[in-house]
Amino acid sequence: MPELRKDPITDRWVIISTDRSRRPADFVRERVPEVRSTRFCPFCPGNESKTPPEVLAYRNGSGANQPGWSLRVVPNKFPVLGIEGDLDREGEGMFDKMQGIGAHEVVIESPEHALSMTELSEREIEQVLWSFRDRMLDLKNDGRLRYVLLFKNHGEAAGAILEHSHSQLIALPVVPKRVQEEMEIAQRYWEFKERCVFCDLVRQELNDGSRVVTETDLFAVLEPYAARFPFETWIVPRRHHSHFETADGQQLQNLAWVLRATLRKIEKVLERPPYSVLVHTAPLQEPAKNSYHWHIEIIPKLTRVAGFEWGTGFYINPTPPEESAKFLREAGLG
Amino acid sequence: MPELRKDPITDRWVIISTDRSRRPADFVRERVPEVRSTRFCPFCPGNESKTPPEVLAYRNGSGANQPGWSLRVVPNKFPVLGIEGDLDREGEGMFDKMQGIGAHEVVIESPEHALSMTELSEREIEQVLWSFRDRMLDLKNDGRLRYVLLFKNHGEAAGAILEHSHSQLIALPVVPKRVQEEMEIAQRYWEFKERCVFCDLVRQELNDGSRVVTETDLFAVLEPYAARFPFETWIVPRRHHSHFETADGQQLQNLAWVLRATLRKIEKVLERPPYSVLVHTAPLQEPAKNSYHWHIEIIPKLTRVAGFEWGTGFYINPTPPEESAKFLREAGLG
Repeated sequence: MPELRKDPITDRWVIISTDRSRRPADFVRERVPEVRSTRFCPFCPGNESKTPPEVLAYRNGSGANQPGWSLRVVPNKFPVLGIEGDLDREGEGMFDKMQGIGAHEVVIESPEHALSMTELSEREIEQVLWSFRDRMLDLKNDGRLRYVLLFKNHGEAAGAILEHSHSQLIALPVVPKRVQEEMEIAQRYWEFKERCVFCDLVRQELNDGSRVVTETDLFAVLEPYAARFPFETWIVPRRHHSHFETADGQQLQNLAWVLRATLRKIEKVLERPPYSVLVHTAPLQEPAKNSYHWHIEIIPKLTRVAGFEWGTGFYINPTPPEESAKFLREAGLG
Repeated sequence: MPELRKDPITDRWVIISTDRSRRPADFVRERVPEVRSTRFCPFCPGNESKTPPEVLAYRNGSGANQPGWSLRVVPNKFPVLGIEGDLDREGEGMFDKMQGIGAHEVVIESPEHALSMTELSEREIEQVLWSFRDRMLDLKNDGRLRYVLLFKNHGEAAGAILEHSHSQLIALPVVPKRVQEEMEIAQRYWEFKERCVFCDLVRQELNDGSRVVTETDLFAVLEPYAARFPFETWIVPRRHHSHFETADGQQLQNLAWVLRATLRKIEKVLERPPYSVLVHTAPLQEPAKNSYHWHIEIIPKLTRVAGFEWGTGFYINPTPPEESAKFLREAGLG
């Protein structure tokens, strides 16, 4: 008999098929190639002039927009939002609109033409996490911006156009509906229990163990109880903080290890699947919150069925999270 | 400059790229084949024993589960929910679950092995709509069931496994979060204006015209102001009703014409794209509501970028709805 499970973070019910559960080999995924294409790569050193001028770079002495960097952040050449101008909020009869003001940046994670974040060293991944923090702290100074979406699409089927390993950042003048919803439900839980729902969740999951992939002193990696997607994986800090950008050096160092180990497990068990990595964090301009807790969600793109889920927001997951956790745990690598 | 637009039905902001807008030929969609496969089809007449016994059929005198039908509704052979048993609501520490009770049925739309609903006659499509109504009225008698999702996935990339034209129905013991949200926001609008937000929307859109695809005395076909997806198309009844199953014969007859004309336009302009058709209606056991208004949403699957949108609920639409409306209007056919 399938189960209906409710996610305590979003109040969403999900169908988990427990009968005919699908194992890693059952998915018709599009594998991310292991072999580099021979196309020109604008993210490789020497091609700095092919991207807009950098907004941040970690380098040893060399000049801006020259080779010699270990990480570069540049505006997206085809941004979905523009940074210049006013919001010009306006009605169109019953509708509401504003100018598409915001930032859209790309983090070029390494000078090496790596095909996956897992080819980077822990030190390099730590640098990527520092760049996320640095960019968020900088964008916070722009009062028009209310939320920063930090994400990584890996593989063409997950939306990555260039293969050179990179992440993206979209800074928005609105708080996305889904984020608002998470904040509100976490707040309601706080009012009921005077505890953070994520702190409770991590404690219960680490005690129970069946959905835990791995843990360190600072992070828990787990498959959520009401996972929407097969092998959906969350990395949750064990220490309570609402904003990603408050993470300290010790946390970022440990997170680099945890993120690399988790992605390596996913790539091994699912044979190089496309995936998205998403940072969930509190809105940029809000003060620290007792009720909300930043975390990372990893969503492998394994199933092609999209129309129904997109249209209804109702998810059917063919792989119970207890099973995916077991596969990932047993993959070793961390 | 791109625009941020807010959907009045869901309060969701969407980025509409107005600069580099994508036209029909720009999408790398997977076309739905025009040629029938030679695989065995369990939905064709003569193969009735290959499906579970029918729960509804329109036929002229022949016996149940025999050829001679013009439409059959059968339980899904691999249902995501089971109809027998109790809900057994239960907690698992902080989590909530219940047994996966519900119905999962397939509407075989025609005895012909049609590859698309557009190959059916208006009369046949009207029959499909009648079967939706009949099944909803029947399932309403089961007090455990709170919501019926009526949908159609067309093409493999949209999740259809069999090519013989069919729709599906999933009856749930919960109201999906997205539906609840639509109901609540519509209710808030009602309290503010004492008008239905959908009635207002249809009036404004028909007045304005720029996002209208086609209209009849009973229905408006339009591209929503804050469309999440390129060529997302809504069919909204002009008469106010919260529940699909209250539609009368005149409405269903006209809707058959409208739905066929709209799908033919979409298939012509986008060259046989995969798509999903979703009926949005009020929860099964609730009384008629002033604030909510049933309608149909059609979502062509044109873009492959899914991870980011899935994870954040934040949408970037590369085609302004004014442009997609123009393409569909100019396609003729209705």
